[in-house]
Amino acid sequence: MPSISQRGVDMPASPIRKLVPLANEAKARGVKVYHLNIGQPDLPAPKVALESLKQIDRRVLEYSPSEGILSFREKLTRYYAGFNIRANVEDIIVTTGGSEAVLFSFMACLDPGDEIIVPEPAYANYMAFAISCGAAIKTVPSRIEDGFALPPIEKFEALITPRTKGVLICNPNNPTGYLYTLKEMNQLRDVVKKHNLFLFSDEVYREFCYTSVPYVSAFHLEGIENNVVLIDSVSKRYSECGIRIGAVITKNVQVRENVMKWCQARLSPPLIGQIVAEASLDTPDSYMNEVYNEYIRRRDFLIEGLNRIPGCYSPLPMGAFYTVARLPVDDADRFCAWCLSDFAYEGQTVMLAPASGFYTTPGAGQNQVRIAYVLRQDDLAKALTVLANALEKYNGL
Amino acid sequence: MPSISQRGVDMPASPIRKLVPLANEAKARGVKVYHLNIGQPDLPAPKVALESLKQIDRRVLEYSPSEGILSFREKLTRYYAGFNIRANVEDIIVTTGGSEAVLFSFMACLDPGDEIIVPEPAYANYMAFAISCGAAIKTVPSRIEDGFALPPIEKFEALITPRTKGVLICNPNNPTGYLYTLKEMNQLRDVVKKHNLFLFSDEVYREFCYTSVPYVSAFHLEGIENNVVLIDSVSKRYSECGIRIGAVITKNVQVRENVMKWCQARLSPPLIGQIVAEASLDTPDSYMNEVYNEYIRRRDFLIEGLNRIPGCYSPLPMGAFYTVARLPVDDADRFCAWCLSDFAYEGQTVMLAPASGFYTTPGAGQNQVRIAYVLRQDDLAKALTVLANALEKYNGL
Repeated sequence: MPSISQRGVDMPASPIRKLVPLANEAKARGVKVYHLNIGQPDLPAPKVALESLKQIDRRVLEYSPSEGILSFREKLTRYYAGFNIRANVEDIIVTTGGSEAVLFSFMACLDPGDEIIVPEPAYANYMAFAISCGAAIKTVPSRIEDGFALPPIEKFEALITPRTKGVLICNPNNPTGYLYTLKEMNQLRDVVKKHNLFLFSDEVYREFCYTSVPYVSAFHLEGIENNVVLIDSVSKRYSECGIRIGAVITKNVQVRENVMKWCQARLSPPLIGQIVAEASLDTPDSYMNEVYNEYIRRRDFLIEGLNRIPGCYSPLPMGAFYTVARLPVDDADRFCAWCLSDFAYEGQTVMLAPASGFYTTPGAGQNQVRIAYVLRQDDLAKALTVLANALEKYNGL
Repeated sequence: MPSISQRGVDMPASPIRKLVPLANEAKARGVKVYHLNIGQPDLPAPKVALESLKQIDRRVLEYSPSEGILSFREKLTRYYAGFNIRANVEDIIVTTGGSEAVLFSFMACLDPGDEIIVPEPAYANYMAFAISCGAAIKTVPSRIEDGFALPPIEKFEALITPRTKGVLICNPNNPTGYLYTLKEMNQLRDVVKKHNLFLFSDEVYREFCYTSVPYVSAFHLEGIENNVVLIDSVSKRYSECGIRIGAVITKNVQVRENVMKWCQARLSPPLIGQIVAEASLDTPDSYMNEVYNEYIRRRDFLIEGLNRIPGCYSPLPMGAFYTVARLPVDDADRFCAWCLSDFAYEGQTVMLAPASGFYTTPGAGQNQVRIAYVLRQDDLAKALTVLANALEKYNGL
């Protein structure tokens, strides 16, 4: 039998993946599992989006242009302008989800052996896309005590080598919910400019910023227009994860030309997804406001509840729909598995994402979990009760 | 400005891409362009597929499982069984188009520096996906004089090095339309077995085989079950290129596990595309027969017409909807560009795909073009008249 690629073999299995069979077994035993582990919004997609599907009237479901449908890209420019992100049509390349946007950005900018610096905890799949390109991710730890704020910029500079090609941030952050401040963004700008680096900025949660200060996009930063590669997706903002529509947005012509080579190789992003995404851009403000207010209510309810559980601590996240919380346990991987395999409270349990999967520093985040608030508030209430009971019982063992 | 990835810079631009602006300019001048260059079927998608779109009744357009929707994969097993391809559900991983199936197969099997051997002319994007992985494609030329039959197997063996990991075929073939015989497939089996290689087999055109002998899939070959990685797509068989649904099918558990790591990193193949593809599997035989007969009629008409043009030669392709033809010109790249930039016959011209883009051997296929018969027969007739006139005028210059 021929040998397979070492690159896949080397890729660490996500700790959540290991929990999936345990969750399935728990369900098979009749236990109700509250999924606090997932980033799949539960709120309905906008009506205009769902309606657009029924109105598709085509004989052939043909390839779209490799860079995406022009009318969709034009409409995106107006959407971005609403966030003061000044992108022209030619700056926007439509991708198959934010995932492909990350992959193609890396493929376009990174050669084997190149390095990028990422604050951790970080979205685990960045690592897979870096491995795809033969590039390495170097992490700078952020701290729960600081609410996962940007680590001191000197820590980034300390990691810079001749192979460093960029810095990657996710803002608002998955998994921490942290929202970078103007001061922090300016620090990133300065370091990127000084060392001539790319700034990859994953901003798929931009609708979900819970502060009164204006949202700062990497596109707002002056003097690094050719360094910024923005990553976007419609998945989270319209509950449309399944349509797989994202985008790479950059003013850097060379990067765009390189991204386009990979776009042409895969021929076309999904046609129907683009039709739905284009329709979604007409979503009324009332929908967005409702969704926004619902997430704020849930966040406040969840964080307050978490902080009332003895030994638990969560900062108040200012964006996205996640938090990384500290639990009174030594090993969150083991606790999360135990919740599914050995525990139930009134026939219910919780599935949490061990934070270890979001760190590359060995041992970091060992007592932390990521909790997503994509459950209705009454389910969140029950999940919190279950979690409090689970911790009490686990620590009494 | 930070420097971009050399990998993209090194990737040769497709000769068709260079023609696109010329075609657009011709259209802007009011010239009617017959597109013989594209692989986008013009025939309507099945009614069951188009109807399924209108019946989607969901609130959330959620992620599907990374390996694809179970009911779709189950239905695919029955579809494949109809071709005597004995795949179980767990052997089938749904991908975002055949493109992603090729990419993930390569990522799962090939390490940087590894090599695969491919008969040329070959589908140009295989090269891009190999470059993505840092792998190299070595080509064995097939000859128009032999109807693009499989080159002598010794030519494959002569290219084998310690880094050779596999052989890749496309069957029926894009761009040549050649359909590999049982004898040729057995030769490939023997070489793959002897040298412990993967056999990547792209079989997306299997519906379109125009011989009376049974179609031979790589999955039919005995004794190399763990070597075969089958690549599939619904794009061509149902005129659904835009829904981006393909599959990797393999009995090799290690390959599947490795493919799944990349599937999980990109989260999910398109949800709506899978719904449409699943519905398409209920397409009545009458539709498939109609499409099949239409392609045969067009093929016969096109090839006869081509061979009547002085100096032109095309073998009779036994599969897919392409042929590679020889034209009485020194440089088909230049001729194809000239047709768009400097020629019109009664206000019409043709766009052909220069075959040079399908060869890696320098100078190979210099007087050849790929012609797709995805135009109605009356348009094919006009296109042939235009081509004959273009050649006459070009050679009289």
